[in-house]
Amino acid sequence: MSGRPLDVLEASLEEEVTVQLKGGEMYSGTLTGYDQHMNLVIEDGEDTTIIRGDNVVSISP
Amino acid sequence: MSGRPLDVLEASLEEEVTVQLKGGEMYSGTLTGYDQHMNLVIEDGEDTTIIRGDNVVSISP
Amino acid sequence: MSGRPLDVLEASLEEEVTVQLKGGEMYSGTLTGYDQHMNLVIEDGEDTTIIRGDNVVSISP
Amino acid sequence: MSGRPLDVLEASLEEEVTVQLKGGEMYSGTLTGYDQHMNLVIEDGEDTTIIRGDNVVSISP
Amino acid sequence: MSGRPLDVLEASLEEEVTVQLKGGEMYSGTLTGYDQHMNLVIEDGEDTTIIRGDNVVSISP
Amino acid sequence: MSGRPLDVLEASLEEEVTVQLKGGEMYSGTLTGYDQHMNLVIEDGEDTTIIRGDNVVSISP
Amino acid sequence: MSGRPLDVLEASLEEEVTVQLKGGEMYSGTLTGYDQHMNLVIEDGEDTTIIRGDNVVSISP
Repeated sequence: MSGRPLDVLEASLEEEVTVQLKGGEMYSGTLTGYDQHMNLVIEDGEDTTIIRGDNVVSISP
Repeated sequence: MSGRPLDVLEASLEEEVTVQLKGGEMYSGTLTGYDQHMNLVIEDGEDTTIIRGDNVVSISP
Repeated sequence: MSGRPLDVLEASLEEEVTVQLKGGEMYSGTLTGYDQHMNLVIEDGEDTTIIRGDNVVSISP
Repeated sequence: MSGRPLDVLEASLEEEVTVQLKGGEMYSGTLTGYDQHMNLVIEDGEDTTIIRGDNVVSISP
Repeated sequence: MSGRPLDVLEASLEEEVTVQLKGGEMYSGTLTGYDQHMNLVIEDGEDTTIIRGDNVVSISP
Repeated sequence: MSGRPLDVLEASLEEEVTVQLKGGEMYSGTLTGYDQHMNLVIEDGEDTTIIRGDNVVSISP
Repeated sequence: MSGRPLDVLEASLEEEVTVQLKGGEMYSGTLTGYDQHMNLVIEDGEDTTIIRGDNVVSISP
């Protein structure tokens, strides 16, 4: 399982990511937190967004 | 996982948040409670709303 | 988690609530029961309705 | 949780109920069985129907 | 819970059943197997079909 | 539960099966693997396909 | 269960795969990670994509 998905998320902390949601929306910003459900915390300038993991299609570091 | 999603929710208690639901609805108000499923309690003036977590797309403190 | 969602439901027992379902339907009545899945029992005059929790969007006490 | 949802189902055994499903269908008949997932057994004259609980919106005893 | 749903399935083994799926499809045949998820095995003459339980709306023995 | 669904899958290993998915797609080929979620491995000539079980409607050996 | 789905994924590490998602999208690239939920890591040149497993329909090594 070399490079398991959650390990790749861990390595992406404090880096820019693009997140695609099931509804088609895209979020870009700095990944500042996540958990095992792929709930995410994205910061973009002053804005912080918590995304519930079940909405996530893909995350591109 | 610096700043896990539920830690960010905990830090947002008694603060204004905007919640986006899967159906496209938005709720704004004071976050007065949550649990590990992201079930939320939002207060807006006299009104209290319990939101079932599986409807949540994102929460912006 | 001050005022967790299920604590707010507990405090709403025997009070009037409005429940919004995913299909857009609304139920109003007295909340006479619930469980940890947010399955609900609503009484409205002579009528009793059990609502399966996974249909619930929000509950307003 | 006075009058939990499953207790109300238990009390409704052998009584007439109306079940609304997510697809909009309605079933009426005698509730002759259920389990913790809200899987239901409904009897209407000679006909017996097992309904898988995840289809259920509401049950009105 | 007199006549729990899975007990009714057990009693229906080797009998004719009609299964309605979420997509609207109907299957008729002899119920030759099931499990606790309501995964089903239906035999109709030479044809055997395994149905994944999460597609099932109702089963009529 | 005579002939439980997973036992029928086990007995179908290395045999031709037709798999119907929720999206309407059909896969035909040799069943060379499965697990308890009904994740499947289907081989058709040179092509191998892993199907995630939650997409499966039915499997016909 | 000869050749269980996750064993086939394990054997496909560092190989080219094509992934079909529920929304109809296709991803092609080198599979560099996965986990038991079928969360995947796909690399295509400079681009890395984490795909949340519940979006996956099929994976073709």
